[in-house]
Amino acid sequence: MQPVAILESALYVDDLDSAEAFYTDVLGLPLIRKVEGRHVFLRCGEGVLLLFNPDATIEPPAPEAPFPIPPHGARGPGHLCFRASEAEIDAWKERLRRAGIAIESEVEWLTGGRSIYLRDPAGNSLEFANPKIWGVT
Amino acid sequence: MQPVAILESALYVDDLDSAEAFYTDVLGLPLIRKVEGRHVFLRCGEGVLLLFNPDATIEPPAPEAPFPIPPHGARGPGHLCFRASEAEIDAWKERLRRAGIAIESEVEWLTGGRSIYLRDPAGNSLEFANPKIWGVT
Repeated sequence: MQPVAILESALYVDDLDSAEAFYTDVLGLPLIRKVEGRHVFLRCGEGVLLLFNPDATIEPPAPEAPFPIPPHGARGPGHLCFRASEAEIDAWKERLRRAGIAIESEVEWLTGGRSIYLRDPAGNSLEFANPKIWGVT
Repeated sequence: MQPVAILESALYVDDLDSAEAFYTDVLGLPLIRKVEGRHVFLRCGEGVLLLFNPDATIEPPAPEAPFPIPPHGARGPGHLCFRASEAEIDAWKERLRRAGIAIESEVEWLTGGRSIYLRDPAGNSLEFANPKIWGVT
């Protein structure tokens, strides 16, 4: 018995509006819903990317809350990697260049496969990587 | 153009050994590889769960590093959710009970579908949720 898949991945941001603009406009992820000042939820394939304001989510739920969601909230740069083929990585490099987003690093792995790294507006380290680097094709 | 899937999701932990024991023994995720004091990488379905020691990963790569991985490293409780059917959620409740892991909260969503919440040894908020809560079956 083991978890079959990751359904939700979370990143924390200091400015939800600029994060929403980046993830929807530059990366093209569809918005699912948002709550002003608290979160922006985005769809990514069969999963969901959750962007949270840690100042809001670190607060414990009220005793009478209908949905008692446990508090959480991290600070400092997190990390997330999107799956991409070699051709998609090339297309992302071009798209990011046009959007004025710097490629911080590009790595060719010993396994074959490549990663590119960039920052979101909050400073989180984002990566596009060929799944080959994990032995998945 | 948009990212097709999330390939890697990251959590930060203060004790890699206890995190490894929890994620492999209690949750049953297969270990991919680890570097003592820096990280533990686990497979989860078609994705990868990365557990990092932020004290190590926040250090910039050496100028001569063959794989210049940009620094990152968050502190405080993060969040991650595993996909599970209703039957799997019941099975996880039983497995976690036997392992002595408390269910911090259980939520029935208005959309239909349910979530259970628990903590990993580092205090990260973990969830098992029916993908129905995101309109995915």
